[in-house]
Amino acid sequence: MREKIIEKILESGMEFVSGEELSKQLGVSRAAIWKHIKALREEGYNIESVNRKGYRLAERPSDLLASNNICHELDTDIIGKKVISFETIDSTNDYAKQIATNENEGTTIVSEEQTSGRGRLGRHWHSKSHEGIWMSIILKPNIVPYKAPFITLIAGASIAKALNTLGVNTKIKWPNDVIVNGKKICGILTELSAEIERINYVVLGIGINVKTMEFSSEIENIATSLYKEGYNLSRVDVVKAIIKEFETLYFDYIHKNSKLETLKVCRNYSAIIGKKIYILQGEDRELVKCIDINEDGNLIVEKDNGSIKEIVSGEVSIRGEKGYV
Amino acid sequence: MREKIIEKILESGMEFVSGEELSKQLGVSRAAIWKHIKALREEGYNIESVNRKGYRLAERPSDLLASNNICHELDTDIIGKKVISFETIDSTNDYAKQIATNENEGTTIVSEEQTSGRGRLGRHWHSKSHEGIWMSIILKPNIVPYKAPFITLIAGASIAKALNTLGVNTKIKWPNDVIVNGKKICGILTELSAEIERINYVVLGIGINVKTMEFSSEIENIATSLYKEGYNLSRVDVVKAIIKEFETLYFDYIHKNSKLETLKVCRNYSAIIGKKIYILQGEDRELVKCIDINEDGNLIVEKDNGSIKEIVSGEVSIRGEKGYV
Repeated sequence: MREKIIEKILESGMEFVSGEELSKQLGVSRAAIWKHIKALREEGYNIESVNRKGYRLAERPSDLLASNNICHELDTDIIGKKVISFETIDSTNDYAKQIATNENEGTTIVSEEQTSGRGRLGRHWHSKSHEGIWMSIILKPNIVPYKAPFITLIAGASIAKALNTLGVNTKIKWPNDVIVNGKKICGILTELSAEIERINYVVLGIGINVKTMEFSSEIENIATSLYKEGYNLSRVDVVKAIIKEFETLYFDYIHKNSKLETLKVCRNYSAIIGKKIYILQGEDRELVKCIDINEDGNLIVEKDNGSIKEIVSGEVSIRGEKGYV
Repeated sequence: MREKIIEKILESGMEFVSGEELSKQLGVSRAAIWKHIKALREEGYNIESVNRKGYRLAERPSDLLASNNICHELDTDIIGKKVISFETIDSTNDYAKQIATNENEGTTIVSEEQTSGRGRLGRHWHSKSHEGIWMSIILKPNIVPYKAPFITLIAGASIAKALNTLGVNTKIKWPNDVIVNGKKICGILTELSAEIERINYVVLGIGINVKTMEFSSEIENIATSLYKEGYNLSRVDVVKAIIKEFETLYFDYIHKNSKLETLKVCRNYSAIIGKKIYILQGEDRELVKCIDINEDGNLIVEKDNGSIKEIVSGEVSIRGEKGYV
């Protein structure tokens, strides 16, 4: 009901819409309309009310991850054309997986809060209310499953590019950790449902710490938020910029089989090319120098003895010589 | 309840178990026990009843895909240690996917009938009651997702090896079509749920035409059944043999990282090595000669101009020079 009220108010632009009109169109009492308006104001919508005229939106509450806000003037063809928004949900990825079979490509789920947010390898992901961007995009790429992991690189590249465009000095720690001032501000959880020959769907989960100021002791040395690093951005602007960049790079890959722009972004913003890093695999730990990211998106490193090695994402972890990066 | 009655009767071996005992142990009336016994007889269980002695199984109904039959003396460590059997179900793969997260590796689903059986690429798979083996195995291999497709080769190799051991002259059309007398008797549908770095689960679906005599006109030239080709085998024996062979080859791959035995089976039983085949990709069609299957499980072919090409499963289809094989 609140979504519908906001829709009506948005539709009327700078015109007022009366409580009576809303009550008639939506089939609820004027008292109920008033109750919802009150709740919407508490959520952050700046709704003006003038006697005998009615309601209008004084200004767009640009920091609320409501579908209306995100879809408004979003200039994409597929990604984000439908946005489903929640105040709270267990996990946007889990919800996306539930509906993926019956949704079109590009449908995007956002929530102000996740009660069971997950990171990679089943780890818990802190996703407090209104502190970040917790979103999942449903994709149905017509590619063989073994080509799906590159989508994770595309996601990292899109986020880094979008944030840099918005003025945030952002780097990428291969394969797809997006970092600001040497700390992680973003997690990407790509989940795949597939037959051996074809993909049913991919759910691309993106979690970005925007306003978080407190991190638990296990992660405070490696995690940060945009606000903590001095960037005060509208979350809606960030979401829209990411969706836009992602669609361009994703379409390059899916429709033109081109990785060029993604790889360019990954190289240009790389936090590790030219640096020494540790390659971690099980109990093993090897110090190497990062040389490049090759055309497959794999990391090229040089060992101490001068030999060159290709590192495939997913098989190893990497750490900086002196800490996280 | 019927499962429990059969369990009790099986437990007692050649001894009779009285209706009174069954009624007491299972907490239902003797009339109910009698009703279930009657239904079990209709399902094919040959249950003897003798006055004042009770019930016993005169002979194991070896052709029913009941979990008791399959688990009985099944000599495996993981695969098939738990079997869930149905008279009818929509799709054993769909059921397996529903329960996969909460089940242990190796849990196997069988059904006498599938009402919505699926083959690859969403195609319908005919799975009439008691005419075949419709089964799904839940796997949780600790490998990166791009290594999962090899499991499909392992499945094909296990089935071919099991059937050959049972006296059926079986060949494999790379990557995993199992064929008898030039026609397909088996379909494999491997489905994957994964993060980019790790597998949540794999559901390995296997459909084998055992007794089917009639095929629809679209597939009658390429499909057959064991019985139609002159082989009268117990379905339970076939299932047990496949599970046993599969576990061996699967463990080789997962625990020892060894593909050797699977590749040996794929080469030895290959229907196409040494022959000319068409490589089909979209509208393209190219006649080449099959040379070998390489260590990655990919097909090595020789073009007309003498150049050698490696074919990756999933990216192309293949056809024999003169038809299916």
